[in-house]
Amino acid sequence: MARPVTLFTGQWADLPLEQLLDKVVEFGYDGVELACWGDHFDVSEAMKDPNYCKNRWEMIKKKGLGVWTISTHLVGQAVCDNIDLRHKSILPPQIWGNGDPEGVRKRAAEEVKNTARAAKRLAEAVGHEIRVVGFTGSSIWHLVYSFPPVTPEMIDAGYKDFADRWNPILDVFDEEGVKYGLEVHPTEIAFDIASAQSAVDALGGRKAFGFNYDPSHFGYQGVDYVEFIKKFGDRIYHVHMKDVYWSPVPKQAGVFGGHISFGDFRRYWDFRSLGRGNIDFEEIIRALNSIGYQGPLSVEWEDSGMDREHGAAEACEFVKALDFTPAAGAFDAAFARE
Amino acid sequence: MARPVTLFTGQWADLPLEQLLDKVVEFGYDGVELACWGDHFDVSEAMKDPNYCKNRWEMIKKKGLGVWTISTHLVGQAVCDNIDLRHKSILPPQIWGNGDPEGVRKRAAEEVKNTARAAKRLAEAVGHEIRVVGFTGSSIWHLVYSFPPVTPEMIDAGYKDFADRWNPILDVFDEEGVKYGLEVHPTEIAFDIASAQSAVDALGGRKAFGFNYDPSHFGYQGVDYVEFIKKFGDRIYHVHMKDVYWSPVPKQAGVFGGHISFGDFRRYWDFRSLGRGNIDFEEIIRALNSIGYQGPLSVEWEDSGMDREHGAAEACEFVKALDFTPAAGAFDAAFARE
Amino acid sequence: MARPVTLFTGQWADLPLEQLLDKVVEFGYDGVELACWGDHFDVSEAMKDPNYCKNRWEMIKKKGLGVWTISTHLVGQAVCDNIDLRHKSILPPQIWGNGDPEGVRKRAAEEVKNTARAAKRLAEAVGHEIRVVGFTGSSIWHLVYSFPPVTPEMIDAGYKDFADRWNPILDVFDEEGVKYGLEVHPTEIAFDIASAQSAVDALGGRKAFGFNYDPSHFGYQGVDYVEFIKKFGDRIYHVHMKDVYWSPVPKQAGVFGGHISFGDFRRYWDFRSLGRGNIDFEEIIRALNSIGYQGPLSVEWEDSGMDREHGAAEACEFVKALDFTPAAGAFDAAFARE
Amino acid sequence: MARPVTLFTGQWADLPLEQLLDKVVEFGYDGVELACWGDHFDVSEAMKDPNYCKNRWEMIKKKGLGVWTISTHLVGQAVCDNIDLRHKSILPPQIWGNGDPEGVRKRAAEEVKNTARAAKRLAEAVGHEIRVVGFTGSSIWHLVYSFPPVTPEMIDAGYKDFADRWNPILDVFDEEGVKYGLEVHPTEIAFDIASAQSAVDALGGRKAFGFNYDPSHFGYQGVDYVEFIKKFGDRIYHVHMKDVYWSPVPKQAGVFGGHISFGDFRRYWDFRSLGRGNIDFEEIIRALNSIGYQGPLSVEWEDSGMDREHGAAEACEFVKALDFTPAAGAFDAAFARE
Amino acid sequence: MARPVTLFTGQWADLPLEQLLDKVVEFGYDGVELACWGDHFDVSEAMKDPNYCKNRWEMIKKKGLGVWTISTHLVGQAVCDNIDLRHKSILPPQIWGNGDPEGVRKRAAEEVKNTARAAKRLAEAVGHEIRVVGFTGSSIWHLVYSFPPVTPEMIDAGYKDFADRWNPILDVFDEEGVKYGLEVHPTEIAFDIASAQSAVDALGGRKAFGFNYDPSHFGYQGVDYVEFIKKFGDRIYHVHMKDVYWSPVPKQAGVFGGHISFGDFRRYWDFRSLGRGNIDFEEIIRALNSIGYQGPLSVEWEDSGMDREHGAAEACEFVKALDFTPAAGAFDAAFARE
Amino acid sequence: MARPVTLFTGQWADLPLEQLLDKVVEFGYDGVELACWGDHFDVSEAMKDPNYCKNRWEMIKKKGLGVWTISTHLVGQAVCDNIDLRHKSILPPQIWGNGDPEGVRKRAAEEVKNTARAAKRLAEAVGHEIRVVGFTGSSIWHLVYSFPPVTPEMIDAGYKDFADRWNPILDVFDEEGVKYGLEVHPTEIAFDIASAQSAVDALGGRKAFGFNYDPSHFGYQGVDYVEFIKKFGDRIYHVHMKDVYWSPVPKQAGVFGGHISFGDFRRYWDFRSLGRGNIDFEEIIRALNSIGYQGPLSVEWEDSGMDREHGAAEACEFVKALDFTPAAGAFDAAFARE
Repeated sequence: MARPVTLFTGQWADLPLEQLLDKVVEFGYDGVELACWGDHFDVSEAMKDPNYCKNRWEMIKKKGLGVWTISTHLVGQAVCDNIDLRHKSILPPQIWGNGDPEGVRKRAAEEVKNTARAAKRLAEAVGHEIRVVGFTGSSIWHLVYSFPPVTPEMIDAGYKDFADRWNPILDVFDEEGVKYGLEVHPTEIAFDIASAQSAVDALGGRKAFGFNYDPSHFGYQGVDYVEFIKKFGDRIYHVHMKDVYWSPVPKQAGVFGGHISFGDFRRYWDFRSLGRGNIDFEEIIRALNSIGYQGPLSVEWEDSGMDREHGAAEACEFVKALDFTPAAGAFDAAFARE
Repeated sequence: MARPVTLFTGQWADLPLEQLLDKVVEFGYDGVELACWGDHFDVSEAMKDPNYCKNRWEMIKKKGLGVWTISTHLVGQAVCDNIDLRHKSILPPQIWGNGDPEGVRKRAAEEVKNTARAAKRLAEAVGHEIRVVGFTGSSIWHLVYSFPPVTPEMIDAGYKDFADRWNPILDVFDEEGVKYGLEVHPTEIAFDIASAQSAVDALGGRKAFGFNYDPSHFGYQGVDYVEFIKKFGDRIYHVHMKDVYWSPVPKQAGVFGGHISFGDFRRYWDFRSLGRGNIDFEEIIRALNSIGYQGPLSVEWEDSGMDREHGAAEACEFVKALDFTPAAGAFDAAFARE
Repeated sequence: MARPVTLFTGQWADLPLEQLLDKVVEFGYDGVELACWGDHFDVSEAMKDPNYCKNRWEMIKKKGLGVWTISTHLVGQAVCDNIDLRHKSILPPQIWGNGDPEGVRKRAAEEVKNTARAAKRLAEAVGHEIRVVGFTGSSIWHLVYSFPPVTPEMIDAGYKDFADRWNPILDVFDEEGVKYGLEVHPTEIAFDIASAQSAVDALGGRKAFGFNYDPSHFGYQGVDYVEFIKKFGDRIYHVHMKDVYWSPVPKQAGVFGGHISFGDFRRYWDFRSLGRGNIDFEEIIRALNSIGYQGPLSVEWEDSGMDREHGAAEACEFVKALDFTPAAGAFDAAFARE
Repeated sequence: MARPVTLFTGQWADLPLEQLLDKVVEFGYDGVELACWGDHFDVSEAMKDPNYCKNRWEMIKKKGLGVWTISTHLVGQAVCDNIDLRHKSILPPQIWGNGDPEGVRKRAAEEVKNTARAAKRLAEAVGHEIRVVGFTGSSIWHLVYSFPPVTPEMIDAGYKDFADRWNPILDVFDEEGVKYGLEVHPTEIAFDIASAQSAVDALGGRKAFGFNYDPSHFGYQGVDYVEFIKKFGDRIYHVHMKDVYWSPVPKQAGVFGGHISFGDFRRYWDFRSLGRGNIDFEEIIRALNSIGYQGPLSVEWEDSGMDREHGAAEACEFVKALDFTPAAGAFDAAFARE
Repeated sequence: MARPVTLFTGQWADLPLEQLLDKVVEFGYDGVELACWGDHFDVSEAMKDPNYCKNRWEMIKKKGLGVWTISTHLVGQAVCDNIDLRHKSILPPQIWGNGDPEGVRKRAAEEVKNTARAAKRLAEAVGHEIRVVGFTGSSIWHLVYSFPPVTPEMIDAGYKDFADRWNPILDVFDEEGVKYGLEVHPTEIAFDIASAQSAVDALGGRKAFGFNYDPSHFGYQGVDYVEFIKKFGDRIYHVHMKDVYWSPVPKQAGVFGGHISFGDFRRYWDFRSLGRGNIDFEEIIRALNSIGYQGPLSVEWEDSGMDREHGAAEACEFVKALDFTPAAGAFDAAFARE
Repeated sequence: MARPVTLFTGQWADLPLEQLLDKVVEFGYDGVELACWGDHFDVSEAMKDPNYCKNRWEMIKKKGLGVWTISTHLVGQAVCDNIDLRHKSILPPQIWGNGDPEGVRKRAAEEVKNTARAAKRLAEAVGHEIRVVGFTGSSIWHLVYSFPPVTPEMIDAGYKDFADRWNPILDVFDEEGVKYGLEVHPTEIAFDIASAQSAVDALGGRKAFGFNYDPSHFGYQGVDYVEFIKKFGDRIYHVHMKDVYWSPVPKQAGVFGGHISFGDFRRYWDFRSLGRGNIDFEEIIRALNSIGYQGPLSVEWEDSGMDREHGAAEACEFVKALDFTPAAGAFDAAFARE
């Protein structure tokens, strides 16, 4: 209704985009949020080939779909992280290079700058603004519990590192007129409201930086995901619709996860297909209406217990039944209209 | 009643033991759990001076108090940790040395072995078993959220490192006939039921290794702290009575803590004086009765909002009102006794 | 299924009836509850023009819709109220007149009598009973919190005033064989179960007076809206299906509303589109079945955050999925039928 | 999707099977669970007439339906029960005979043996395994509250009686290669997890005996119906989808039922049409997926307040929307697939 | 304060009364409720020895204690029960006799008549009314779940049997001016509000019959124990203070108890020392105040996990801290008193 | 401990102050909050008699008590109210005069000015600051539910009236250096957080005006009483400790009270003796500590079901057990202190 419902393609990167788009149409979506991995959206190609963005857009448009966002979660992660072997598996070879941490971080930063430039080119092809969303990484995530005692200075240093690395990137976003939305998430510089505020403060509040709102990373932690929208209303640059379950009773592995896998019955929480978790999307829609958010509702589908095609279809239906157009005026008045 | 109520001296290490013991008596406790820092219990002295343990015990006995446990949280932490500057502030200079990580870990391991030896000496002075409790550190705590994707092999390597470092230590415990109780806690090799099981498995289930049960680290995570007692009934080597509050509604900083300090109103959870948090101690007492635990109930008092002397006194009263002697026989039968 | 689902036209009085009826059909409803304002149902015309009711009915019937109820909330309100300028905006000019309070109340009372007469005429055109529902006003609503201390005599006087003003009106209802259903609601003589009982008692239990049941005014107050049905089973003359939300956590403005508008995020409660609030309609349907209520389920749609056309359509679908035919016999028996 | 959705015909035994099958098709089901009463499935005929099973199957297949299970609740009940006049109304005349308790029990046992034989014949006609589900009765149900004091010996005697009577029956099931699923239920030898374990133990864990899982008998009692699946994962031989409501607040008649009928508003609990009670079917589906259950989801429809045809149709739709195919692999991995 | 706090001696019948009374004083009670078993109160002696009651009273008075009630739970149970071997263990030999069921029931009935007579004699010695409380048994308890289908006639027959057996007993109570209070309890003719109403109705509402209110038998069943007081306000002849725990989460054995013992961790519910269960005694005290109950609050102490002497003392303290004198007048008025 | 615990004398105005003070000592309080009615504190006398304040203070001091606050709820109420006969019963004759509304309001305003002057005189006698707390009345309370529709202009007019009447009064408070604390309460210009903010805004934020914080008026309404403290931390001029109960389940009369009396069982909410209601005082104490509130905790005792002397004593004990001294420093640090 009110807003396009898109599918984030990141969990489908094993499929070529063209094949995926046919499924997306069949599932009932209005468009896609393109992952910058797999063959979905290739930043290097977009830099090299002046027709790349136009061709991608033609392919999408031909299916009757739209696009408003591209996603750079994997490369973005490497910008601030303490790099180790885990990163090799999520980065393109040319960014991993020889794996020296500072080199990886710098190459990742350059790639995110190019992602802004590519977004601008895609925007020109599509004819409206394209936003970039993704991760930032963090040099201080491992200090998540304060023992041995963590000093305020150590935390401050982490935010300064973040600012030092991202300000030059955001300069390119400003040049291109593109906005960056961090998906607030564990392992990132921001993972709740308090740390999101610290991140905004570290950047001096510059407007190129905002958020890819995703409630699934807040609910199980005990973070007020509706308050997030109200507090950062003018920085909600994109929205992920993703559900998460947490148990009404305590379990064998809690929020920290017990070093066990998603889908294990001993866990306190797990991602779930939309409508089968605990997130109260009704309040989210009302809060998004209250801040005037008009962008896509992008389904990031993840459920370790369900067939993904079954899930992607039901999730689309769920979001379309939930979303609604805000009222034109207040209602009480109407009662007495004559 | 049923069990001695002791005060863990770790949070009072700024006071000399003798001065603290007078307060302990005044607060109403039956004894102390001695921290191996401050001047409370000095492992090096216990190794050097054959009268040290006897003298400590005389001082305690003279006040009418008892002792059943010594605690090596700070040094134990360094055995498996990825060492950084935070550890300097919690370690004695001779263990920190020049701060080279592997050297620190090895010196810490030797100190924990000596702690077992010292516990044996103290036991001889006191005339009953003395247990050692504390931390272990962990080389994999920073992998607490699985992104970038963490492989099972990375987790397994962490448990293997733990076993490699602690098995030689536990050999000394076995030689001395002393038991080690890990306080299951974030930043340690075990922080919930699932990871505690993994730790036990990594050591092949050897009996020198068990737990210093402390519900305050489980409740806010969503871990079933009563189930912990039933599952590890024969490895509950010591018990901390410590309370924790978590909010009935979501907050700005969740379980991961938002990189903000204890006592900040934006937090979802915080430690609290006993009886003022959410832990259901009634169920804990009944579970401890069911496994036949007869050791001390040791108050680890921590509440960033309350004067500690006020708190230590009310906590002692709280535990004494709560604890009770189990029944001799079942009760229904009695109804019809004639 | 079991019962017709109607739309109350009061919130749509800005649209001419004919235009509205087309929408009503499109939304999926079985009929309408006609507001006696806008051009929906004009009591004066019904009194003057002998064909008015027949013409209205023809218009409705032609669309394939039904009608069982007409509503006089606005004029009814003026019968007992302490009149002030607010009433001018909800009353027709001829009833407001010069605005002298007692004159307004008397003219309103005469109009409600005529509404009974008009209902009878409409019933003759339609071929089945038509009920009148609406408000009563109250001279004691402003005494809602008992400070400065309110005496029982002051309350009794309010109920006596109510009886004195409504008994003559109800005499006309009895003459015409029409029933009046008060919508129990804040600002009326009855706003919960206790005050509804007092209102019934004040009228000596006469049967012309009953209720237009609407759970949305009870739930947020903490009033047992299912109990209401069981207690007043033989006086449930009509049913409004209207949902309301109240917060699981306290807010800045509570039940009394903080003198702020509907739709403000600081409020504890707000009306919502059916199925998006807290009312448990399942229990309501079962209770209505238990008292044998066979009349319409009339959607009074109000949600200050949603486009009303979107809402009216989803509300109709919601009620139709919810409602069901009662069982013919008990079920356990069937198991063993042979 | 993943599993066939069937209707248990026990509550429809007043209708001839052929007539019922047409309704079953119309309601949307994939098949039936055949009651061994009414004319639905006649064990005596199946023993006598070599074409009976083939004919039944032809009738079912012609409607496009399937069958996986036959049900012997009524006769099975008589095997262990203390027989009284209530049993006369649920048993065929030839099994009731002259009503002498031990004779009734023996004749019922023989009939259940024949039911295994008949299941085998039906399986041959259909071409896949047919399971038998039903009740067992119990000689100790009346000892449900331990006053006057019940001794462990009295309980043990009840389980021994159960084993003595059912082992010979299960020998026939083993001979025929058929499995028996007890519907764990009040009045049976097993009515919760603890008594189900006792029943399994009494039979030495033989595999011919398992369960017809039905959550509706557990939820209102306070029994963990999801844990049941995990604990008895390899003995879940069949699944009933049946919902039950229990009140969030205390009532006039509690779990023991106050000797009043289903459907009485004073009751704490009652069976309800699927989706209108309290059972969390989402967790059930996930638990069934985790144990690899591939059999039918059989709707046992019972709701004393609703028309059964309305209910059977909505229940089928509910189960089909709920059920889903499990995931092929874990999901986190997919995020980084390239 | 407002009411005497007594200890019910039934669970202490292994101790001679004199020895028990010393403990009762030490625990802090104001008096005792005397069990008619052990040597506490012997009905036969009271009938034979004209000084028996006087002597008992002297013994109690000398300790500074009071008595208001005698209890005949064990013999009362046999009046309506289907007698089996369990009853032998709870009955005196002269009542059990040869164990023929009807003979046992008749002898039990005679003994309850004598209990009324003995109560009258004790009342004369003490100088105020003495009430008798206890059980009634039931011929229909085993029909607690309606399968095989139970007919209304079977239930009616059970209540008629109750009336036939108890009316002659209550005639003696009326002659002696003594009241009988049934402890509403599973296995009795009444076990919740609905069945209590049926019992009152079966006796035509005669006033000799009322209730020994005990919330512990209601809470875990889901029965509204505060409503019980309001509904039967004029029949609350005595009050037991007894607590019960039921789990916030489902367990392996539910309300029906899984044929396992009290104290087993798998149970959903268990009796607990006062203040350690779930009963909301605050609401009970307010309800008792509202009906003007002035009798004793009698602690029936039962907790299978706690030493009974520890428990009896803490229970007395709990009740004394809880109970309070009602207000003389309403409070709002006072605010403005001048 | 940390703060004096006082008793507000308003509910005891039927007793002469001297007699009351003896009780206050016996109940265990540290001081009193003096009502400006009864003979407790007479503003006229304080204006006339230069020794009055000194004498009052001598009387209080002699009992070993303190005083920090005087209360003008009754006269304050008349300043903005729409005056009717209810006010006659709460006002001194000289302020009621002939009862003409505007005259009453003006005389009340003058009396509140004198109360500031009297507070200053009492402060000089006592030797520390004395604050005035009380009500303000409201000309718009009767508009509490917005039907007939209330316009923003009507609400604004109410706040303007409040400012016009209270600014001149507050000028006197400023002259005298005394602060006024409004008890936010239904029937006042402020009754929740939203309306309290409006009141502060209406006065331009002048510091002479703040709040007498009382959680009992917020909790049952659904207003966040802990948030109130944080939001208005620098305007919490005084604190009432008063408890209120609200039902976990809906009732016959909701928050609006059904025009029935306090103490009626049909009500959803009622005031209760401290510790017997629903207010979470633990969070209040922590919030008061966080804003550095050092003033008295003043018990306003009200419970329509309890004897007031019983209640006043238990309330004092409750508050003293609850209150605590804040921590000097954060606690985590202490763990590692050496």
